[in-house]
Amino acid sequence: MTNFEEKTIQSKQIFKGRVINVQVDEVTLPNGKTSNRELVKHPGAVAVIAVTKENKIIFVEQYRKPLEKSIVEIPAGKLELGEEPIVTAKRELEEETGYTTNELELVSSFYTSPGFADEILYIFFTDKLELLTETKDLDEDEFVELMELSLEDALELIKQQKIHDAKTIFAIQYLQLKGMK
Amino acid sequence: MTNFEEKTIQSKQIFKGRVINVQVDEVTLPNGKTSNRELVKHPGAVAVIAVTKENKIIFVEQYRKPLEKSIVEIPAGKLELGEEPIVTAKRELEEETGYTTNELELVSSFYTSPGFADEILYIFFTDKLELLTETKDLDEDEFVELMELSLEDALELIKQQKIHDAKTIFAIQYLQLKGMK
Repeated sequence: MTNFEEKTIQSKQIFKGRVINVQVDEVTLPNGKTSNRELVKHPGAVAVIAVTKENKIIFVEQYRKPLEKSIVEIPAGKLELGEEPIVTAKRELEEETGYTTNELELVSSFYTSPGFADEILYIFFTDKLELLTETKDLDEDEFVELMELSLEDALELIKQQKIHDAKTIFAIQYLQLKGMK
Repeated sequence: MTNFEEKTIQSKQIFKGRVINVQVDEVTLPNGKTSNRELVKHPGAVAVIAVTKENKIIFVEQYRKPLEKSIVEIPAGKLELGEEPIVTAKRELEEETGYTTNELELVSSFYTSPGFADEILYIFFTDKLELLTETKDLDEDEFVELMELSLEDALELIKQQKIHDAKTIFAIQYLQLKGMK
């Protein structure tokens, strides 16, 4: 393509948080003018599409403060510094669902909001689940409720907007394209 | 579900930007403890899955500062205050692609990053496109390059991670599920 690169003139740190950092970059535009870009830096995250032996999809319901409501999502969590996504995926699966697996297949990755954030999400699939004999602790500020649903029930929750986020809708489409009934 | 609501004790505004606002909310957790939630407030956005008479999907390539690279996406843009999503969708389609339509069907909506942001994305579909006789101006800090691709070519761009964001991968899966070849 035409080179539309935006070179950084200066970068101003606005906020260093526990999860996100925020900065405003002054940039040179392709036409030589300048503009400001507001950027959220995020460590990246993983999510797991997990299907049980009984052909149910595993979800967790949790309260999402930015939305001020609970929604139903596939298990997910943030990457820790330097951590391989597959390691995070296994840990989040264990902590949030009580299942584990040694077979996680990376099926996709995508940026969630490329207009303002660098968050990338790695999505894994497994249908080789085993129950953990001991449950693992969630993060101390994390509260989730496990749900196992048929594809049909999941589609109904999309209609009700109880399932209402990008990664979970991706997951349902992925399973439909894979031929799940 | 169990009520996992997180009540706000106090909310601290960190940043008021042109696109996003950032705040940190101190909340009461379900177990009575307190924690902080870092929240990005976003006006919401629209995207358009547009298929031409020649059975090509319309994309735009643009530089995304948060990623420091160009990616290929379906046409999209932010809601203006109080604007109906379908109005934004038509405007962004016209500005970014030179096509217009009076037939836009809302096919989905989803939160892009419910862990830290309230951004919601409304996705429209059309295969009733007409060329505008006069091109419309993009925003003054917006530079995009139009592409019209077959489904097969789009799938190849996903493999190359040139298509690499949630809404565009959603769009491709949507068209696959719709039976597009």
